[in-house]
Amino acid sequence: MADEFAIGVDIGGTKVYAVALDDTATVVAEHRAATPADPDSLVRAIASAVDALAVPVGSLGIGVAGLVTIRGEVRVSPHLAHPERLDLVARLSARFGVEVRVDNDANAAAWAEARLGAGRGVADLVVITLGTGIGAGIVCNGKLVRGAHGFAGEPGHFTINFDGDTHVTGGRGSWELYASGTALQRAVDGVLDTAVLATAEGVALLDAYANAVAIGIGNVVALLDPELVVLGGGVSSVGEPLRAAVERCLPAWVFGAAERSMLRVVLAELGERAGAIGAALLGAGTRWATT
Amino acid sequence: MADEFAIGVDIGGTKVYAVALDDTATVVAEHRAATPADPDSLVRAIASAVDALAVPVGSLGIGVAGLVTIRGEVRVSPHLAHPERLDLVARLSARFGVEVRVDNDANAAAWAEARLGAGRGVADLVVITLGTGIGAGIVCNGKLVRGAHGFAGEPGHFTINFDGDTHVTGGRGSWELYASGTALQRAVDGVLDTAVLATAEGVALLDAYANAVAIGIGNVVALLDPELVVLGGGVSSVGEPLRAAVERCLPAWVFGAAERSMLRVVLAELGERAGAIGAALLGAGTRWATT
Repeated sequence: MADEFAIGVDIGGTKVYAVALDDTATVVAEHRAATPADPDSLVRAIASAVDALAVPVGSLGIGVAGLVTIRGEVRVSPHLAHPERLDLVARLSARFGVEVRVDNDANAAAWAEARLGAGRGVADLVVITLGTGIGAGIVCNGKLVRGAHGFAGEPGHFTINFDGDTHVTGGRGSWELYASGTALQRAVDGVLDTAVLATAEGVALLDAYANAVAIGIGNVVALLDPELVVLGGGVSSVGEPLRAAVERCLPAWVFGAAERSMLRVVLAELGERAGAIGAALLGAGTRWATT
Repeated sequence: MADEFAIGVDIGGTKVYAVALDDTATVVAEHRAATPADPDSLVRAIASAVDALAVPVGSLGIGVAGLVTIRGEVRVSPHLAHPERLDLVARLSARFGVEVRVDNDANAAAWAEARLGAGRGVADLVVITLGTGIGAGIVCNGKLVRGAHGFAGEPGHFTINFDGDTHVTGGRGSWELYASGTALQRAVDGVLDTAVLATAEGVALLDAYANAVAIGIGNVVALLDPELVVLGGGVSSVGEPLRAAVERCLPAWVFGAAERSMLRVVLAELGERAGAIGAALLGAGTRWATT
């Protein structure tokens, strides 16, 4: 890929965001557009966004929320109507003449953080994406964990309260009912910004939310024993007060906390670009040293 | 290891169980002894058990319940007093002149099932050990997941009911409070045998227990999306009625259950030998084709 670029596209609920990376993994171009509702318009919007980058396409990776199979078929998705009619791999590879790889957006964001962001050099880490729901990307033994179908990393569906409310997906007392960005917005009745955090009520709300976040992280740690937990997604913009509060709550919910000398909680570094950058890295695959 | 054997020792709460495997992974000798309480007696008991196998020692692997570090130090353990004074690696390698590898017993059992038992040929699987507590061994991308400290695979400490009782380890509403063998014994007030399962009350008890098992498996599946969940540990001797009941309860607790065409729940095949066989395989390491 001497004079070609690794293209990554993150398909969010409202925006299609495309980046072009050069072979030092530097973002050399980016483009944003609205996410259309129907499958055909979406494929066209992705193609237009890639065209708008105005660079030679060496590889193309797509990140999308939902259950994405190992072959890149989007199944259940929170944002997209009729994902079964998308067929991104076939249509976009025909359009651009390159292999196209489609991954879950949280997997893509996690891979970006693992390779270029907060997780550089760490072999066992989990990136928790606190947004509309809760997603995760898992790296074990230095490799992304996709699972048998490609559906790994959906801790938002952890049962943390088996007597709890029924989630829209059918589960009960799911983690994301208590610890997603949606749950935080509901509790705060708005945004947890500096002004709110300057009040005693704001601090109490943050602590209660951080405790809910810590419960699910405790479950992740019990199963995977990561070295690093990276907090990403929209909620991570709350920043250090959130990180510190989660870290403070964590020992109550982590088995053997005192023995886990290496466990650290950090904030994601790549921000809202992480999904697109990770999609680009995954799309470039082994043709690229950084993956 | 032409004329030498891979030795594995499983240190349980009551028994030290040693096996010798030849280079076709066949058990050619086995020995059982009581587990002594103090560290010095335990090291001597292990050495005696290995001697009693009466075969040349090519490698030595040990499986033990509790948090075992990557370097083989036993930290928190449910069975052993003063695990910090055990120093199994140094003392047993000096005694037998081979490298000694110490692993968590559930990791060892899982590795045995993955290589030689119910999980042969499967790249992504989880072995759930339903015993005094609940342990797990995780295989992702064909490799055992140990985690950053070596403590991966402790789903018994999942919080599944954050308003629940406090566990002895400090967590609240932990999975093993509801779904361990201990919890089952408490509910049944004895053993769930064929006679009990022939009664309506017995069937109801099994269903309630299987539902509790399914909640935690749902959490494992949400995070790791395995192809196979293997039920092991003492409770798995209930057999097919348990397996079928867990499978029946699972869709209520698994996100995207209908999309997970490959997800299967099976019983462990290697029985109480799994831990020792897995310890032998892990101890033999790369010197052996079967690992």
